[in-house]
Amino acid sequence: MVAGLLAVALRRSGYQVGVLDADITGPSITKMFFPNGARPGSSPLAILPAETRTGIRVMSINLLLESEDQAVIWRGPLISGAIRQFWSDVLWGELDYLVVDLPPGTSDASLTVLQSLPMSGVVLVTSPQDLAGMVVRKAAQMVGQVGVPLLGLVENMSYFVCPDTGKQHEIFGPSKAEAMADWLGVPLLGRLPLDPQIAALCDHGQIEHYAGDVFQSIAEQLVELAPDARKPVMPGT
Amino acid sequence: MVAGLLAVALRRSGYQVGVLDADITGPSITKMFFPNGARPGSSPLAILPAETRTGIRVMSINLLLESEDQAVIWRGPLISGAIRQFWSDVLWGELDYLVVDLPPGTSDASLTVLQSLPMSGVVLVTSPQDLAGMVVRKAAQMVGQVGVPLLGLVENMSYFVCPDTGKQHEIFGPSKAEAMADWLGVPLLGRLPLDPQIAALCDHGQIEHYAGDVFQSIAEQLVELAPDARKPVMPGT
Repeated sequence: MVAGLLAVALRRSGYQVGVLDADITGPSITKMFFPNGARPGSSPLAILPAETRTGIRVMSINLLLESEDQAVIWRGPLISGAIRQFWSDVLWGELDYLVVDLPPGTSDASLTVLQSLPMSGVVLVTSPQDLAGMVVRKAAQMVGQVGVPLLGLVENMSYFVCPDTGKQHEIFGPSKAEAMADWLGVPLLGRLPLDPQIAALCDHGQIEHYAGDVFQSIAEQLVELAPDARKPVMPGT
Repeated sequence: MVAGLLAVALRRSGYQVGVLDADITGPSITKMFFPNGARPGSSPLAILPAETRTGIRVMSINLLLESEDQAVIWRGPLISGAIRQFWSDVLWGELDYLVVDLPPGTSDASLTVLQSLPMSGVVLVTSPQDLAGMVVRKAAQMVGQVGVPLLGLVENMSYFVCPDTGKQHEIFGPSKAEAMADWLGVPLLGRLPLDPQIAALCDHGQIEHYAGDVFQSIAEQLVELAPDARKPVMPGT
């Protein structure tokens, strides 16, 4: 969800954006962007990414399956092979940003992305639960060991605003995001509420309709932090 | 969380219970049970599981790390090897139930557990989001292909009860659990609320203090569904 909404925010800022879904055994990117399913573009030379309503280019294993419910029961080497192909054999075209969605954990998918793709950096996503925090600290250690820059931290599921009372409920406990960002030595890019609107948009392939400001701010900070991408082409210029 | 609370409920019913944490790269079981960390028991012959306050035996990669934040950056074959060792080289003693906590996805960890351990069955955990539902349907397909029985479905994060108004908020959308259980042909074992109390207990190693009824009901249904386990020894008999 964070990867998807980040891509939407970058696209709104005028960048050419792609999303590579590296979560081969739990892919969710296509469902967020395509209400009626999608297929990859066809070309005799390469795999073409599917293109969303606003022109974001997407590659996910789900584009290649007969049905989105079909399981991909693969051990690590096949998973790594698919991710490498999504990078090298897909005709992405000119992109300013390629957002790569990773599964949790520090095994084949994350390792392959960190070792085989020329990453500008990594954004870590945590939640207020210390259970999640611990797993994110493990991931941060892996990123450090591989030598890829950590760009920042996002806290998801931070709080729920009751629509009747307007009160914030910290369902997963008080936020630990500031402390964790300090500990990691990276900026806290944003805190995301538990928002029924986001959940519904994701389930209906309409993530590009999301209107919240927080992702626009996260995207702007990331553009500052990863300045090696090319200048945006604003629509109409 | 579901694996941990299920083990607690089975233990309360008088069974000898173990928990094998097969989520090698994102292990969370020890944190739920041990407020001050834990080490495995020591024996010249085998690895002994750590024992919780109420006598649940736990094995997790986190027991073997110097610090819980240490990353285990392993590709599939090492992950599979660790899981097989947790089953064959750990002196579990006499158990009625061994609850195995799996990571999401259909890759090495899940495959190894399904293929190498003599499973009575699998409990699938979903959420109301169709994004989660899709990944769970993929997992169900894997379980079917390997030939292990599906015992039932649990829906997590179903709703949040506002403490001020008592109203249920379906943050991740309306429940699809009944329809999904029908589709899978298994019973819906229970629906779990988003509960700040559970989150806090999990983070403080006090999951055994949880007093909700829903897990006792889930445990009773599972005992009926997997009757090949031995009869419980009630405390004091």
